[in-house]
Amino acid sequence: MRRKVAILGATGTVGQRFIEILKGHPWFEVSVLAASERSAGKRYSDACTWRLESEMPEEIGEMTVVETSLKAIEKAEDIDLAFSALPGSIAGPVEEEIAEEYPVVSKASAHRMDEDVPLLIPEVNPEQLGLIEVQRERRGWRGFISTDPNCSTIQLAITLKPLMEFGLKKVIVSTMQALSGAGYPGVPSLDIIDNVIPYIRKEEEKIQFESLKILGTFDGSRVKPADVIISASCNRVNVRDGHLEAVFVELEAKPTPEEVEDAFRNFVGEPQRLKLPTAPEKPIIVKDEPDRPQPRYDRNEGGGMSVVVGRVRRDPALTIKYLCLGHNTVRGAAGAGVLSAELMVAKGIL
Amino acid sequence: MRRKVAILGATGTVGQRFIEILKGHPWFEVSVLAASERSAGKRYSDACTWRLESEMPEEIGEMTVVETSLKAIEKAEDIDLAFSALPGSIAGPVEEEIAEEYPVVSKASAHRMDEDVPLLIPEVNPEQLGLIEVQRERRGWRGFISTDPNCSTIQLAITLKPLMEFGLKKVIVSTMQALSGAGYPGVPSLDIIDNVIPYIRKEEEKIQFESLKILGTFDGSRVKPADVIISASCNRVNVRDGHLEAVFVELEAKPTPEEVEDAFRNFVGEPQRLKLPTAPEKPIIVKDEPDRPQPRYDRNEGGGMSVVVGRVRRDPALTIKYLCLGHNTVRGAAGAGVLSAELMVAKGIL
Amino acid sequence: MRRKVAILGATGTVGQRFIEILKGHPWFEVSVLAASERSAGKRYSDACTWRLESEMPEEIGEMTVVETSLKAIEKAEDIDLAFSALPGSIAGPVEEEIAEEYPVVSKASAHRMDEDVPLLIPEVNPEQLGLIEVQRERRGWRGFISTDPNCSTIQLAITLKPLMEFGLKKVIVSTMQALSGAGYPGVPSLDIIDNVIPYIRKEEEKIQFESLKILGTFDGSRVKPADVIISASCNRVNVRDGHLEAVFVELEAKPTPEEVEDAFRNFVGEPQRLKLPTAPEKPIIVKDEPDRPQPRYDRNEGGGMSVVVGRVRRDPALTIKYLCLGHNTVRGAAGAGVLSAELMVAKGIL
Amino acid sequence: MRRKVAILGATGTVGQRFIEILKGHPWFEVSVLAASERSAGKRYSDACTWRLESEMPEEIGEMTVVETSLKAIEKAEDIDLAFSALPGSIAGPVEEEIAEEYPVVSKASAHRMDEDVPLLIPEVNPEQLGLIEVQRERRGWRGFISTDPNCSTIQLAITLKPLMEFGLKKVIVSTMQALSGAGYPGVPSLDIIDNVIPYIRKEEEKIQFESLKILGTFDGSRVKPADVIISASCNRVNVRDGHLEAVFVELEAKPTPEEVEDAFRNFVGEPQRLKLPTAPEKPIIVKDEPDRPQPRYDRNEGGGMSVVVGRVRRDPALTIKYLCLGHNTVRGAAGAGVLSAELMVAKGIL
Repeated sequence: MRRKVAILGATGTVGQRFIEILKGHPWFEVSVLAASERSAGKRYSDACTWRLESEMPEEIGEMTVVETSLKAIEKAEDIDLAFSALPGSIAGPVEEEIAEEYPVVSKASAHRMDEDVPLLIPEVNPEQLGLIEVQRERRGWRGFISTDPNCSTIQLAITLKPLMEFGLKKVIVSTMQALSGAGYPGVPSLDIIDNVIPYIRKEEEKIQFESLKILGTFDGSRVKPADVIISASCNRVNVRDGHLEAVFVELEAKPTPEEVEDAFRNFVGEPQRLKLPTAPEKPIIVKDEPDRPQPRYDRNEGGGMSVVVGRVRRDPALTIKYLCLGHNTVRGAAGAGVLSAELMVAKGIL
Repeated sequence: MRRKVAILGATGTVGQRFIEILKGHPWFEVSVLAASERSAGKRYSDACTWRLESEMPEEIGEMTVVETSLKAIEKAEDIDLAFSALPGSIAGPVEEEIAEEYPVVSKASAHRMDEDVPLLIPEVNPEQLGLIEVQRERRGWRGFISTDPNCSTIQLAITLKPLMEFGLKKVIVSTMQALSGAGYPGVPSLDIIDNVIPYIRKEEEKIQFESLKILGTFDGSRVKPADVIISASCNRVNVRDGHLEAVFVELEAKPTPEEVEDAFRNFVGEPQRLKLPTAPEKPIIVKDEPDRPQPRYDRNEGGGMSVVVGRVRRDPALTIKYLCLGHNTVRGAAGAGVLSAELMVAKGIL
Repeated sequence: MRRKVAILGATGTVGQRFIEILKGHPWFEVSVLAASERSAGKRYSDACTWRLESEMPEEIGEMTVVETSLKAIEKAEDIDLAFSALPGSIAGPVEEEIAEEYPVVSKASAHRMDEDVPLLIPEVNPEQLGLIEVQRERRGWRGFISTDPNCSTIQLAITLKPLMEFGLKKVIVSTMQALSGAGYPGVPSLDIIDNVIPYIRKEEEKIQFESLKILGTFDGSRVKPADVIISASCNRVNVRDGHLEAVFVELEAKPTPEEVEDAFRNFVGEPQRLKLPTAPEKPIIVKDEPDRPQPRYDRNEGGGMSVVVGRVRRDPALTIKYLCLGHNTVRGAAGAGVLSAELMVAKGIL
Repeated sequence: MRRKVAILGATGTVGQRFIEILKGHPWFEVSVLAASERSAGKRYSDACTWRLESEMPEEIGEMTVVETSLKAIEKAEDIDLAFSALPGSIAGPVEEEIAEEYPVVSKASAHRMDEDVPLLIPEVNPEQLGLIEVQRERRGWRGFISTDPNCSTIQLAITLKPLMEFGLKKVIVSTMQALSGAGYPGVPSLDIIDNVIPYIRKEEEKIQFESLKILGTFDGSRVKPADVIISASCNRVNVRDGHLEAVFVELEAKPTPEEVEDAFRNFVGEPQRLKLPTAPEKPIIVKDEPDRPQPRYDRNEGGGMSVVVGRVRRDPALTIKYLCLGHNTVRGAAGAGVLSAELMVAKGIL
């Protein structure tokens, strides 16, 4: 029997990706679509301007949108789980309210750095699920909140994880991020035609702080941040989907590029071992061509869930440099949430 | 009286920029347009598809193109100087041939790293003009070759120069380079629409090697490379003109961002002191807005000759990070050549 | 002595173009910047995000914005004229209020089709200035309202005017319109990357109705619409500035393409005869190249005030087909207003 | 048993689409990959830079490319059919040589207007297959040549076919065509960024002439061109795939837009009746949204084989106007060829 899920912020672009990814999902079925007061009461197809190239699933289009509140959701359906694609500005209190009763797997930034909230990448730090117990005890909720990192952080952290074994000391990353990362309407076309915008609000801070929690160590009660220094410079480029990142790392063990490539290629995590439905066969794909990864050609690898790496080479200033690419609204958003929830099912938490 | 100049590779995009910049120049007049055998003998307006948004100067359009050889140029006009915008693949021997008789100021890469050839940025290393004497003695030429660095290197080096006083140790740079840097036809539109290409052939090597010669010290007979480590990752983005670079630097003196901004703002060189015609008032312009520099808005600062810097901030991994932007076919190509030649005139070399 | 002008809607993109074009204008000086309540009281440089590639004039940046109301404007300065760049939704009543006291030259659509309001293109129908007298009598205003047509209509109408002599019967036009036509923020980048949007709200109706009034005959009291049938299909393309239009016309006299080209080339109007400051030397420029006009290369012809025509050829279905291009925010907006006001000065109306 | 096919011009972009579409095809298997002398003898994966977002099929990558000549193909394999994706400049004699022995289904323009060669759109004019008999008799070949129309013509003609019943008199069409229509490398990025190019060599002539043959009547020995007048204006826009066309038609019967929409919706042809593998369920899909079809969202309808129509409305100048969109390298190229071949199989010709 499939678990019933609500999507919070269902009309936005990440909400739409959740619907797309959950279409025909073996373990979850979309039972509640929650959005702002303005949309509540409308048919989803009327409330939402669909922005994906796939078609809106017909049965979803006919569902009635409810308001994003515990009361409205409870009244609509006895759900097992809520995926939150709420805007950061309102996610904080709303997610807390709903978590009193239901598990919330959130893409929003509001609770990511809370001490008792997992900041989960299933391949990287499944042990942080242990924080749920801590959280429930402390907060007295029947539900809980678990969060997924920021989109540009997820793909970077997946590539940093296998580098930990080489003694990761420093990371410098310059990103070239896609338009869909800013949501809809997002970046005005007049701002980006024939242009690059070398600034994304709070993005560098997110990469620099979230990565340390993601790569940190969980001692059963709290996460100790990783002892790594990370510096980011974030840029918006005229690309629809797919964040590309130029990464420079300092590694104590001074591995060769070939050893680093092997570490990338051999990296697997719990989702692969458990064969979770949304898990890509390979979390990291290494390209041999000299001019890859490229957003348009590589963003859909592994159904958008693989991170694609290329140009692993010696770095004269630190140790190694490479490029990584991830689909920011799949692996970096909705797909991340679904994979997290799948891990929770496999671990008996849902 | 204005000096007569030849433009080698006059029909290409850099050649066109030379023509545009030299229009109405107080010291130089275009007397010879040299191009490939295919174009020789044709009117320039027939031989060339003009790719600039300004109009082709009428009198230039009516000139007859000659072949790029010493003999053809000598026959055409008694020139004082040749600007070379030749493709790298043929520049080597052709420039040598012409330099037997005439001074050659070259944008091509062929002779940049030759021990006795200046790699000149007038604001940064005017002393390298001293290599011309060395070169003439060694090679027995009446003329000489002086070179301008690679486009993405010039703008970076201009910003690195004022950082030398803080004890520059390491530089990491990730570039987002414009389409015009690849010439014409250059990058196919199908390759770059909705895409970024994280590779530009030999570009990283050029940045890493040329910068050391540019910032090196000249002892009267040779240039000792600067003791700095530079690492680059080069990307092509969907922008017409203007290379944007995310720069991370390690500085021994640990200056604050404000001190670095001051160093940028106060930086001037010989071209400013000598008030050379093409010299921008400020070689480096520092922007205060949080989202600048941007290629479309900032590439024409100082007539395309200023480097625009922004977001100077503390770097958690090294010391300071910032962005810099330069017009790649003006400051990075034709404008660089003209400024170099102006310096030579002012110094009595031409 | 220069006339004092107010700009209504001064912070928007058309308002900014007015400021740019009026910089150093011999007849007009910007004395009042009016905008919404939200901006009123702020320095212009704080109230406005400047979206043009030229710099905001310094003295303009220091002016204080006033509210867009008759009272606020009267209090600020005794102006001679107001240029309106107000959004269509609010222009109607506000312009009427201000016209009670002052002449208003408006880019807004609200009053374009009013019977007693000129819909002016100085080269095409200067006689419509006669409606101002009619209007003042009827409405009892000290000021008046005169309007400029919609951007895609102006450039089309300029090319249709010289075709009237051939017996213009039918016009079919398919437009490819620039992003700046939608204002700022305007078209979301996610909507237009790798895409065309074949719909612009109310645009086809504007072209179809306004053209008939523009080309109509004024009998001293009213304008009789031209007896021409016009059909438009309007599309948004990924271009910053410059509307391109594919035009097919039926002409009774069956002229050859050469005769039509001559008619375009020889066309001049009052602005050229009166040598108005903003008038382009040639209202219509005919290109000979087989692949022109192109927005990026031709939009700035005549300072953005010329319409560029190309590919005039026989049409197998009607009589003649051609392409025309105009700068939509210069000739199609702010430049149109300034030229209209210049004509009024020359005619003694201002 | 599947028929063995050769692909002529296998390394180009249309050749690649053939490979993609034929992957897993129930009736055809790719047995020979033919290309220029330069590629002959190489593994396909070495000879070809794959430009599609799908992966190159592994077994295809390992095949050895042969030269495009009858001799080389005969030596390689006993094929049943050749799909030609040859460049127009060389297709003429090469296709004739191969057709002496084998059926050739060609995307090239060389033989489209030959009197005894079908210009086939399976939904529109399956009866033109009758020309094959005429051709074989006249030329004495064991094989034959059948051609598919130009990409922008196919989609237009599919929408014109159901309008024939209303008495189609005149067609005016302005196209906005995708970059992939120019092949690879095709349009330089510097030409199309922030631009539209209002010219595609010979494209208007192709639309105007080919359509008449496509819609003509076959009397058993020759095709009498349709008595319709067609005029085209062709433009290149910055879109990867999908030609969009603004169409204006004069129809004797003066149908309402609703009647025209019904005619589009109800249109089916032989491929639908015969349930050919590549036939879309609906050759024409009518969109209700006011701003569709759009290339990015609609080009893949029906697996790229449906033509998407929208904005059917009254035309004040002629009778009806609408927009149509088709995937230019699927329905407009490789998919067209495969569907043609499927029809031949179903009709017993292959």
